[in-house]
Amino acid sequence: MHLYGHWRSLATYRVRVALKLKAIDAKIVAIDLLSKEHLGERYHAINPQGLLPALEIDDGTVLFQSMAIIEYLDEAFPDPPLLPIDLAGRAKVRGLAQIIAADAHPLMVPRVRDYLTENIGLDSYGVKKWIDRFALPAFEAIEIFLRTQEHSGKYCYFDTPGLADIFLASHVIGAGFFGCGLDPFPRIQKIYEACVGLEAFSSSHPLSQAGAPAHI
Amino acid sequence: MHLYGHWRSLATYRVRVALKLKAIDAKIVAIDLLSKEHLGERYHAINPQGLLPALEIDDGTVLFQSMAIIEYLDEAFPDPPLLPIDLAGRAKVRGLAQIIAADAHPLMVPRVRDYLTENIGLDSYGVKKWIDRFALPAFEAIEIFLRTQEHSGKYCYFDTPGLADIFLASHVIGAGFFGCGLDPFPRIQKIYEACVGLEAFSSSHPLSQAGAPAHI
Repeated sequence: MHLYGHWRSLATYRVRVALKLKAIDAKIVAIDLLSKEHLGERYHAINPQGLLPALEIDDGTVLFQSMAIIEYLDEAFPDPPLLPIDLAGRAKVRGLAQIIAADAHPLMVPRVRDYLTENIGLDSYGVKKWIDRFALPAFEAIEIFLRTQEHSGKYCYFDTPGLADIFLASHVIGAGFFGCGLDPFPRIQKIYEACVGLEAFSSSHPLSQAGAPAHI
Repeated sequence: MHLYGHWRSLATYRVRVALKLKAIDAKIVAIDLLSKEHLGERYHAINPQGLLPALEIDDGTVLFQSMAIIEYLDEAFPDPPLLPIDLAGRAKVRGLAQIIAADAHPLMVPRVRDYLTENIGLDSYGVKKWIDRFALPAFEAIEIFLRTQEHSGKYCYFDTPGLADIFLASHVIGAGFFGCGLDPFPRIQKIYEACVGLEAFSSSHPLSQAGAPAHI
């Protein structure tokens, strides 16, 4: 198995965590986001969308999109599971993950920030306001879900780390890169602390990867 | 079952199609996006994220996020299936759906367009350029996938409509509202035509819903 990714990519981080929780070995193939290697022909031949990550499984099939890759890993390597067994629980965990995947993270990615600065002319203050506008409501919604749903425990769904925790942790890190702290979100903070207590999460942190700087 | 939604919401459209493909009856509860009813207390008590759609299932549990809701429907009502059986196929179908759910649609939603016009001051030409920048690459990537993957058939995955078709059709409609046509994407165009040949898709179209105008 080959994971095409980059230390800075939070979608790659999610797949790293899932692979480690399941103790699956994958060879890391670094695609350099910063020099825009993902936009080149070589990577497009692997993933025509040109986004990270992509996972090449052992028969050579290339999977793309972090959510789809992690659902695949959970189906192909079911132990330990990343989704609960009961159907409504699965929907809630997937729903929490999608709040990050669909409503928060896509507004913060480099191509959006680049367009805001290069094409629209926002300065760094304007970009920070943009990030706050779209990163924080996801935390606010998830904090309420965690406070009001009986399934909230050490992790998003009782006491086992899973899909929602992986996506939530990726957003904690990503928003953190832009100065969004967790003080207003005590439940999320506790869950994130539980996550980083696990080697699968801590060793997957973007700044712990080869090629990463000491801080951003 | 109660589906909270709005005629204009493309995420609600996706769930309408899935319900109809599976012949599941759900009572529609209209939440008026245009008067911002989704931002009010009454709807927040149902879905704390304040986004559409939400699906209240028969035991009173409220599910949120269109992808999570449709995965639930596929697990709870497996016939006809919206995902293939083989694991790599499931990952590819989910991946195509996520291209729309995570990389294209979130950049076109009202709260983003409102921020671009009200806070940043873009005019309608600037908004159209923004839409083109973020709506079209999803079509471009999916068109290449459809051209190069053996599973491309009458629909995204062979000859059965499923999860990827639902998300793709929602984006065809959504991008169409902003004047993005399908001429550069002949495979997508053929699949969309196959979709609208099905009553589940045609009767779910935003402009066919109660309260919708004749055109946008």
